[in-house]
Amino acid sequence: MTDLDHTHDAAATSWVESADATDADFPIQNLPFGRFARESGQPGVGVAIGDRVLDLGRAAEAGLLDGLATRTALGAPSLNALMAHDTADRVSLRHRLFELLSAQADAATQASVTPHLVPGSDVRMLVPAQVGDYTDFYASIHHATRVGQLFRPDNPLLPNWRWIPIGYHGRASSLVPSGTPIRRPTGQLRPSADDAPPTFGRSARLDYELELGVFVAGENALGETVPLREAEERIFGVCLVNDWSARDIQGWEYQPLGPFLGKSFATSVSPWVVTREALAPFRAPAFERPDGDPQPLPYLDDVSNRVDGGVDIRLEVALHTSAMRDRGDGPEVLTRGDSLGLYWTFAQMLTHHASNGCNLRAGDLIASGTVSGPDRSESGCLLELSTGGRTPISLANGEERAFLEDGDDVVLSGRCERDGFRSIGFGACTGRVLPADPAHAPSP
Amino acid sequence: MTDLDHTHDAAATSWVESADATDADFPIQNLPFGRFARESGQPGVGVAIGDRVLDLGRAAEAGLLDGLATRTALGAPSLNALMAHDTADRVSLRHRLFELLSAQADAATQASVTPHLVPGSDVRMLVPAQVGDYTDFYASIHHATRVGQLFRPDNPLLPNWRWIPIGYHGRASSLVPSGTPIRRPTGQLRPSADDAPPTFGRSARLDYELELGVFVAGENALGETVPLREAEERIFGVCLVNDWSARDIQGWEYQPLGPFLGKSFATSVSPWVVTREALAPFRAPAFERPDGDPQPLPYLDDVSNRVDGGVDIRLEVALHTSAMRDRGDGPEVLTRGDSLGLYWTFAQMLTHHASNGCNLRAGDLIASGTVSGPDRSESGCLLELSTGGRTPISLANGEERAFLEDGDDVVLSGRCERDGFRSIGFGACTGRVLPADPAHAPSP
Repeated sequence: MTDLDHTHDAAATSWVESADATDADFPIQNLPFGRFARESGQPGVGVAIGDRVLDLGRAAEAGLLDGLATRTALGAPSLNALMAHDTADRVSLRHRLFELLSAQADAATQASVTPHLVPGSDVRMLVPAQVGDYTDFYASIHHATRVGQLFRPDNPLLPNWRWIPIGYHGRASSLVPSGTPIRRPTGQLRPSADDAPPTFGRSARLDYELELGVFVAGENALGETVPLREAEERIFGVCLVNDWSARDIQGWEYQPLGPFLGKSFATSVSPWVVTREALAPFRAPAFERPDGDPQPLPYLDDVSNRVDGGVDIRLEVALHTSAMRDRGDGPEVLTRGDSLGLYWTFAQMLTHHASNGCNLRAGDLIASGTVSGPDRSESGCLLELSTGGRTPISLANGEERAFLEDGDDVVLSGRCERDGFRSIGFGACTGRVLPADPAHAPSP
Repeated sequence: MTDLDHTHDAAATSWVESADATDADFPIQNLPFGRFARESGQPGVGVAIGDRVLDLGRAAEAGLLDGLATRTALGAPSLNALMAHDTADRVSLRHRLFELLSAQADAATQASVTPHLVPGSDVRMLVPAQVGDYTDFYASIHHATRVGQLFRPDNPLLPNWRWIPIGYHGRASSLVPSGTPIRRPTGQLRPSADDAPPTFGRSARLDYELELGVFVAGENALGETVPLREAEERIFGVCLVNDWSARDIQGWEYQPLGPFLGKSFATSVSPWVVTREALAPFRAPAFERPDGDPQPLPYLDDVSNRVDGGVDIRLEVALHTSAMRDRGDGPEVLTRGDSLGLYWTFAQMLTHHASNGCNLRAGDLIASGTVSGPDRSESGCLLELSTGGRTPISLANGEERAFLEDGDDVVLSGRCERDGFRSIGFGACTGRVLPADPAHAPSP
């Protein structure tokens, strides 16, 4: 775990007044990094403070970041260069940004920073890094158990599940930033009967998946592993991920090589990466394994990981249907949960990922898999909430959902709260379902 | 299929004499593209002719490629920029290279080209493109059947196999060029008995997989599909792929989300990409489905694909053990086969891949999965040749192999031959197995 320092002081405030609002996601204790499109066409990287974005490339050009090892990286068009720096470099940057934005900053400092602050509503945010590889785990025991129960009621978890952080390679090209509309995919669908042929058409079982994602810092050379004690240092920060899933495409294709086109049509990520440093006050013990569960093998186990390998993030999924929007109603919260049901910590996932010598590069994205709580109502996807589509959920306005309908907005959000600390937020990860486009359906 | 033209004339020769040797892989009819490390540190792209490499960046600087739409792309540090061009642009480049290297070229032309020819033995070849995403299919019916028989003797192919080109996302970061040593991976291994815990250690069931890989040309936007009639245009060219596999890691981890660490420690690719244009004389009908097999759904079926969606490539796997090398013996051929057992064409794989709107980008790599023939002796991996390790193969020198031993060199090669045409080759895809490094085994 990272040390707490003055940047975690609950009493600290910013001269950017919007950062001090009680419900602000981005107070001065947060300072998350993101990537945005400038009007010039050249993307830049920035840090969020209240409702503003500090353009770090411009701030560096203006000399505000002189002396920092990360100065050059902040002029890059994505966060990969910053993510290649080590923790000490990143902490120095955090301290400088805190000084520049703190209410303690003198008038001259404020005047020098102000020209490089842009209203957040004016910038179009991008996927934070150029993701070389995207990996998706399956780390929530509640999710894995409930999904397993749909197929194997008596034996929901396979024998490997409690031993291995189960994961698979995802598709990097179809990662999109929050706000990008999601076209309902077409695909080959499971036959309606065992002896019937499959069909090709629009997915009728489109789902969201509430996930957390970690951006990797640094790089291990191919053939080198990452000991668990070093894994935390390889975590740059955390974002929200919506791993949209077409359950009918996935259900037909996934044997024996796993999910493929049921996932690769789009994966949304929230634009602001909340750093490991900002999360320091919210660390939590790793999942307490119930009696009878094995302890992890030694390479996935150490005291530090047990004591605070977890992180306590409150999560929420809200749905805003077109009917709600038409009537001027706000979104309806479908699920409130937290990240404490992750059986494996991100450090364990990362160490396992590299345990065969696989090289993890700065900017790689590692997602948790669907984050669900112990009760069905805390599920992070409709597949669980609707019991595989058999028990549609009822919305307050009388609508029902077994799976997503065209026009549905899905809004993920996350927040960390702990007594004695300033709460911080993740911003939102949103996406609206567009109808499948018949013009794009492939035909010979 | 691409049209045949004068660049396919069997009688054509080059003034680079090594290109005219009967067994040359790279005669003037081939002209494959690759990427190499220059001494300056800046990678360049080139074309192979006999035992030479023409540095295309330098040739472009010297004005030899003026007027070509691809001229700028040839100064790039990888082939991605060239792969972004359309077929017409690439054909124009092929024609220019043919003119420059043809024995018909006048003395002045030869003199202008010669300074940019580098001995192939002097350059270190790289992975041809910066691969955004690597996808691996499972398209050989002989491979899928024999592997399936190991687990389900009566029902080797799952119900979806004849309908869907089954595939999964692979790991892009661990793609390495031919010649890179392959460190035997460590990992979590299946328990020796159902009630025993798994162990962590070196893989004892390390295997190679003989595959073909296609580099993608052009890009479809996210949400747009690729009709089968357009899929061929999206194929830049073909290389050899060795999808190294740790069967014991894979066997324990792969349920339910597919192969992960059993594959991601390394995947070797041959450095020279044989273009679709060069392969034109060697096109073949798509796999003839046996009676009783379904025809593909309409989006995966058209006359053109049936008539010449396939390509006839003779493939070979050779093993060169350290004992053979110590005695000065050459490699022993384990398998001779061809690509005609691919049940799905590359165009079908590509169209299926994009059928959900997944964006395929220039430089993406799509591999076939293990290429095996109908007879066990034509298998493209040891898992098949040794029946899951139960029937080790005997080598001529008295050694046996169930799986790979440390020090083994695996050499893949490929060649196209057809009466009336000059045969062309793929070069080799090699890799030597290094011992697992205990110093790199993760421990807490």
